[in-house]
This record gives sequence, structure tokens and C-alpha cells, in this order.
Amino acid sequence: MGVRPLRKGERTRQQAIARAADIFSLRGYAGTSMADLRRATGLKGGVYGHFASKEDVALEAFDYAVARLRGRTTEALAGKGNAVGRLRAVVGVFRGLIEDPLLPGGCPILNTAVEADDAYPPLRDRARAAMDGWHARIGAIVADGVARGELRPETDPHTVATVLTATLEGAVMLSKLYDDATHMRRVADHLDAYLTTLTTPTTPTTPTTPTTDE
Amino acid sequence: MGVRPLRKGERTRQQAIARAADIFSLRGYAGTSMADLRRATGLKGGVYGHFASKEDVALEAFDYAVARLRGRTTEALAGKGNAVGRLRAVVGVFRGLIEDPLLPGGCPILNTAVEADDAYPPLRDRARAAMDGWHARIGAIVADGVARGELRPETDPHTVATVLTATLEGAVMLSKLYDDATHMRRVADHLDAYLTTLTTPTTPTTPTTPTTDE
Repeated sequence: MGVRPLRKGERTRQQAIARAADIFSLRGYAGTSMADLRRATGLKGGVYGHFASKEDVALEAFDYAVARLRGRTTEALAGKGNAVGRLRAVVGVFRGLIEDPLLPGGCPILNTAVEADDAYPPLRDRARAAMDGWHARIGAIVADGVARGELRPETDPHTVATVLTATLEGAVMLSKLYDDATHMRRVADHLDAYLTTLTTPTTPTTPTTPTTDE
Repeated sequence: MGVRPLRKGERTRQQAIARAADIFSLRGYAGTSMADLRRATGLKGGVYGHFASKEDVALEAFDYAVARLRGRTTEALAGKGNAVGRLRAVVGVFRGLIEDPLLPGGCPILNTAVEADDAYPPLRDRARAAMDGWHARIGAIVADGVARGELRPETDPHTVATVLTATLEGAVMLSKLYDDATHMRRVADHLDAYLTTLTTPTTPTTPTTPTTDE
């Protein structure tokens, strides 16, 4: 299937979504007004000419941000052959959210989860779905690693997904709060040690040389 | 120093702050309007009769929420003699934020940090100060534990504070997002194992029988 070039209207819309994602990531959903969005996106004829509502913009901006996070993860996993190398690449993606941000406001799933959990069900559901996808991805790496004898047989994919995600998202929060990557570095080192405890004695735990990704 | 009984006006104000803390914890700072606050607090003459601005209410509500978290932590630490027992009590405080919430919206420091880091400097500064206090408290337990030979001499108080806080706050986020305490339980078990790795061989790592708190 060839990549169809975007028509001008679609291109304008995509640019507006990218800019909206930046604004939402800095100011939150409730903290972003339609006037903020109009200024940030520069949409002629205003935001309502392209989107049904602020919620509609926020949902599309969230999907866009999560797709970028997913893409960066796929890139980071490429060439990492064994399970520990792949889980370390996941840690690296979060390190990157601080050191080479995708969005100015940190992690879109964290921000949306914290703001929307009690107050905005459609956004909360979208954050849950994104988190489900993220957990499934980590869980699959762990399950594969166990099946291939790289990780200890008792390693539970759900537990590893929860522990990795909680620790990394908490580190994003701390590093953003203090504007200081130290917290993320401490957590990344801690998780490196944790991941080593999950490996079977024969598994190399130092970064593997890149091989083709399966 | 005796406890002075509150005058009626002060009592009304304190009640209003407690109710405002609940609303902010559910809806966030930007998502809470003065009309929401007026409805929630039931203040006759409106919110401006008692507070200078919405930010003023939010700062007082944040201080109130953090004071309650601090009080609950003091309670949890009472009678825990050794460093591991005290650090496990800290984990227990976070478990309680899910299973027996202080506020309906989870952890006030997490919520405020995520919302305010890029957008609301006075609230962000307040969240930083609260987090400083929290880290100092964990750091002091670790430093004491090292000094008393309960924790391995190479244990770094800052690292333990970052790792514990990041992991626990991330677990609050996940458990609130899914409305499911499983994430917090997995993380609490994981941290129990982590804390055991910090102890010297002679330190008892099972919960100690309550003794007088020092």
C-alpha cells in the first residue's frame, strides 16, 4: 500500500493536532482554553471549523502523542535481541522523555491519567486504552523472555509491567517537578539492577550488540 | 502550650478548606471553578469573603492535604523501631492512599506536581517544598539505618527516597487510572523485596513488634 500524500486541509489539521498536543501537555486539558488552542494552532476560521469540541481536539492530540511514544519505543526496540535488552530499551525511552522530550510536558499518558481519572471519562478511557497497550507490550517481552529461557520461569509479565511503568512514570513526575534529570537517572539505574535479578544465569545482561529485530 | 479552641469564623474557614481540598483533588486546579468552590464549601457570602483568590484557596487546600498526609505518616511510623520497618510503614501509607483514601483524588503531591510543573509556578513551588519534606523524611530514616548498622553502609538516602517515591506515586497513578488496587499491591510487594536487599545480614526484615517510637 503506497503512502498517499496529505491534501492541504489534512496537513493543516495534522499540524494543528501536533501544536494542540504541545499545549495540552503543558497546561492540561482543563487549563487549555479554546482561545489558547486558536492561538497555538493558528487555524484560520477558528478551531470549530476543524474540530467538533475541545474534547475532540484533546482526544486527537492524545492519540497523536501516544502514537509518537509508540513509534519511539518501536525504534528503541529495533535490534535488541533478548528480553533484558528490550526491557532496558523501554527504560531508555522514558529516560528520553526527560533528556530528549517528545512533548514539552513530559509523558502524555501520565498527564492524562492524573488529570482525567476522576473528572473526564472519555479522556480517562483513552488513557486506559493507551496504558493497556503499553502494558501488553512490556508483558509480551517478558512472556517471550520466559519462553526462551532468558528470564526466570516465575517472572510474572503483569508484575513486571506494573513495576516498570509505575517506577518510570513516577520518575517522570519527579524529574519534571524539579526540572532535574537526576531522579530519572537514579530510577533507571535501579531498574537496571531489578531487571538483572529477573534473568536466568546464562543470559547476558550487558547491552547486546544490535542484531536484526524479530 | 494549650490548644486554643477555634472561633466560629476560623472553624468555617477550616471546613471550607477541607472541602476545597476534596474538590481540587478530584477536578484539578484548572478544572475547579469559583462556582464549584462556592457550591462545595457552602460559604455564605461566597469564597471571596474568606479568600483572596482561587490560587489562595488552592494553596491552603494543598497545605491542608499535605499536613494530613504527614500526620498519617507520623502515625504509621509510631512504634516502628528499625529502618526497614519504618520504610515499610512509608509503603503502607501509600497503600492506604488507595485502600483508605485521605482524599478522593489520590495523592495531593502527585496531582499538584503533574498539573503545576509547567503551568502554575506558585503551586509547583508548594509541591516541590512538600516533596522536599517527604524526601528528607525518607532520607533521614535511611541515614539513621545506615548509622545504626541496620542498612548496608553503601545505601544512599537520596537514591532510596527517589526510588520509593517514584514507584509509589506511579502506583497511585495506575491504581487510580484503573480504579484497581492490584497495581499498588504489586508495587508494595516489589518494594518489600527491594528494601530487604538494603539490609545488613543481622537486621530482622519481618515487621517488628511495636516498641516505643524514638
